[in-house]
Amino acid sequence: MTKAADTKLTIIQRAADVFNQQGYAGSSMADIMQATGLKKGGIYNHFASKDELAIAAFQFAVHQVSRRYIQILKDHQGAIARLKAVVHTFVANLDNPPIQGGCPLLNTAIESDDTHPLLRQQVQRAMDAWRKLIHRIVDTGVAAGEIKPEVQADTVATLLISTLEGALMLSQLYGDRVHIQRAQEHLNDYIDRLQQS
Amino acid sequence: MTKAADTKLTIIQRAADVFNQQGYAGSSMADIMQATGLKKGGIYNHFASKDELAIAAFQFAVHQVSRRYIQILKDHQGAIARLKAVVHTFVANLDNPPIQGGCPLLNTAIESDDTHPLLRQQVQRAMDAWRKLIHRIVDTGVAAGEIKPEVQADTVATLLISTLEGALMLSQLYGDRVHIQRAQEHLNDYIDRLQQS
Repeated sequence: MTKAADTKLTIIQRAADVFNQQGYAGSSMADIMQATGLKKGGIYNHFASKDELAIAAFQFAVHQVSRRYIQILKDHQGAIARLKAVVHTFVANLDNPPIQGGCPLLNTAIESDDTHPLLRQQVQRAMDAWRKLIHRIVDTGVAAGEIKPEVQADTVATLLISTLEGALMLSQLYGDRVHIQRAQEHLNDYIDRLQQS
Repeated sequence: MTKAADTKLTIIQRAADVFNQQGYAGSSMADIMQATGLKKGGIYNHFASKDELAIAAFQFAVHQVSRRYIQILKDHQGAIARLKAVVHTFVANLDNPPIQGGCPLLNTAIESDDTHPLLRQQVQRAMDAWRKLIHRIVDTGVAAGEIKPEVQADTVATLLISTLEGALMLSQLYGDRVHIQRAQEHLNDYIDRLQQS
């Protein structure tokens, strides 16, 4: 990697942690300068605007999260085991976060929905990819006769993502793992009930 | 109401809408001035700081939301019907929001967890009140023999709140009611399974 590419990646990494903890509106270029140790010009050499950096940082954050799912799914076969592995990965991220500040999809969805169409579109794409991942697991499970034929893949995706993201919000609000643990138990029961008996 | 009290309430109401849509960090005093039609001095006559206004606006927003729950629970008897009424009220708020910008608890929890201890404490208190409301309904239902004795009130509160808040995030991200509708169906099934048969 060239020195310029290396600097650019460092800016993205550090900015991703700052934005994910403080929000985009709550992070100033001074915060990014402090996190990177660079002057304003050193940052603007690589990014035309704060928005351009925000999008690069969000994509980096999502990549850090999603590669964990890809990795863990390699070790699990069967739709029921794989759905539980998705839930487990999300819960385990609380103790060993791929990025500081919690789930970048949740944080950025909440911040951007009323204010930042460009970022909102980025979150929609990342959320689409997560929903499709769950979707494919369910459809493969239905095709294999492992999951009941009447199960709607879209509904499973909505319920897994909603329950996990909402419980993460509670666990972070209180600094208490109990909420995400309850969500995991509830979802594991739910996943078991999808199984063709 | 005196003119001063009237002006103060108007500032709080308008600021609550602005903060809940744009976030606290994303709202400037210029935004509040524009929303209220007042000059900076006219606002600082009533609030010592942006933080003081932020807390008053958050409390106002929570009051707008919580009085809907108090109202609807008067019309429902029995724990199962009351839990479903809580879910229904949350879902109905999407079409007829008590405050612009979605759920103030969710928005403010996400924004404040890493950055704003004072606001975070306010969200914890408001969330405690919502959890206790659900808690009391479940405990009354258990005492009356309507709900299974092994049901944990705390767990019901976590699951209802997590699933609803997470699904709201998805519905607002996509501008699509389907996610919150799926959450409602799932939670109504879950509530039915709490019932003593």
